[in-house]
Amino acid sequence: MRERHALGIDLGASQIKSGIVSELGKVRFKKTYPTPVALGPAKIVATLQELASDLIILSRRHGIEVWGIGIGSPGTVEFKSGKVLGASPNIPGWTKVNLKKTFQKFKLPVCAANDANLMALAELRLGAAKGHRNVVCFTVGTGIGGGIIIEGKLYQGAYHAAGELGHTSINFSGKSCRCGRIGCLEAYASVPAMLDTAQALISESGNRSLLGKYKSSLTLTQLFGALRLGDRIARQVINLEIEYLSSGLANLVNLLNPELLVAGGGLVEVSTSFLRKLEIRIKQKAFASATRNLRVSKAKLGNDAGFIGAALFCLESTKSK
Amino acid sequence: MRERHALGIDLGASQIKSGIVSELGKVRFKKTYPTPVALGPAKIVATLQELASDLIILSRRHGIEVWGIGIGSPGTVEFKSGKVLGASPNIPGWTKVNLKKTFQKFKLPVCAANDANLMALAELRLGAAKGHRNVVCFTVGTGIGGGIIIEGKLYQGAYHAAGELGHTSINFSGKSCRCGRIGCLEAYASVPAMLDTAQALISESGNRSLLGKYKSSLTLTQLFGALRLGDRIARQVINLEIEYLSSGLANLVNLLNPELLVAGGGLVEVSTSFLRKLEIRIKQKAFASATRNLRVSKAKLGNDAGFIGAALFCLESTKSK
Repeated sequence: MRERHALGIDLGASQIKSGIVSELGKVRFKKTYPTPVALGPAKIVATLQELASDLIILSRRHGIEVWGIGIGSPGTVEFKSGKVLGASPNIPGWTKVNLKKTFQKFKLPVCAANDANLMALAELRLGAAKGHRNVVCFTVGTGIGGGIIIEGKLYQGAYHAAGELGHTSINFSGKSCRCGRIGCLEAYASVPAMLDTAQALISESGNRSLLGKYKSSLTLTQLFGALRLGDRIARQVINLEIEYLSSGLANLVNLLNPELLVAGGGLVEVSTSFLRKLEIRIKQKAFASATRNLRVSKAKLGNDAGFIGAALFCLESTKSK
Repeated sequence: MRERHALGIDLGASQIKSGIVSELGKVRFKKTYPTPVALGPAKIVATLQELASDLIILSRRHGIEVWGIGIGSPGTVEFKSGKVLGASPNIPGWTKVNLKKTFQKFKLPVCAANDANLMALAELRLGAAKGHRNVVCFTVGTGIGGGIIIEGKLYQGAYHAAGELGHTSINFSGKSCRCGRIGCLEAYASVPAMLDTAQALISESGNRSLLGKYKSSLTLTQLFGALRLGDRIARQVINLEIEYLSSGLANLVNLLNPELLVAGGGLVEVSTSFLRKLEIRIKQKAFASATRNLRVSKAKLGNDAGFIGAALFCLESTKSK
């Protein structure tokens, strides 16, 4: 039997990553577009359609038939209807978009789910979580997402809303989050929150930091660069980040006792020592019995995990039809 | 075939509840003992042995053969060895006790697990969670425990340490918990923590509260009694309790998206309106998509849930032997 292929799309707040992926996870073609967040949901929908069209035409030209379309989106995505049900504060206006309708004109099966859940599925099938039974995958980027694997299966919850690690509160009297809640992990530890913390500390210090010159254009790479040069403020920002993240993750570990945490997203790509320090701090905070044999590993599929997971989700969900 | 029976034991920080339970969950005999926490682990072990002996002899006298012993204990309990692996701050010295050895002399199969996990199992088989697929049970008493049901099965985690809701932090810069962590839900919202809060507010108010007369002997019943009489401090304490609990539970709801929360323990027994208010607050804090159709129900098996779950756990775990 010939391997089936699907188009997988990973809609992020900054980029749309996509590719044609085989049943066994081989990526045949891939494309990345900037997400036109500022132009609103209609423009994002148009970009998604254009991208799908491009990749499907490209595939056909190479003799690869596209079986279906899988898409991961921030927020909760209702499996049956394809509707985004809410909880995507990083793409304003995105709630209530119907992802099945978005791709209707291609006359292909469309399967949609939460982006971090699909990243977890990809890591389970082909990446760092392969062969493991109880795993939580998390991503730290514009937002903080999570995907939960229970007894070797992706767990989406009673209504496909599970895994929202970024919107667990680590301080009931703390910072406000874009989602409306107080003290969400995302409000403290997302990449933008981290860079905000850095800006605030730079100003306080009267610019006595290597980072002073970057002002509002500061990036993660510059922050970790300054850390390697021994900059005190860079160290302080990164230690705070470890405190916040380990707080949310230790909660998750005491609740779910996974054997493995898989980390993805921009932050993880930049630094290798970061995860080791994070693992140590989680083990200090959570129960010894819950962290026995626990490891924190880097996601193996990197930036491709989301769209690979989306394609596999589509191929697995439509297998028997 | 005749129904099998097991002895179920629920070891709590204040009471040991126990009973002889049939496969279908019928309680034939039951006994409650105070837990001799102050006298140390050896005395607790002796009490457990005495109680087991009493109930086994009583059963035999009535022609009921006891198939095995199930016990629920605070902390993580290693299934194979029966060892308490840690995480039971409310029974000092209890870590490392071996629950299988404790009952060795009875020459019966012994199955041990976390107490709140077994309460969840009982509620799943016979109580409020019956017929549901994704449920979290929680208890608020001397400590705060949790038991997670995923896809219709008790989920104990990679090493039987799952469900420790009481030791998820709701404030990374808050109160110290007996477990050594900062900001644990248990440090804010257990019954003793709640009564401590009441004491502090009574003192601050210069005793202008109906509760002033109780001083350090204040009980939950008195607190809710004062609430019904319109006492301002009682209201304040109970509102704070709802804030704390809803913070921890909204985290859990955003992570696991259960369809049902089942509440047990002393606090729930005392007030019926409390759970309605708690449900409303959880729905305000967690994502709408994660709380769709969510209900917070009272545990149906009350104080018996723990030992019934322990007996069922033993009968189910030893079924095929």
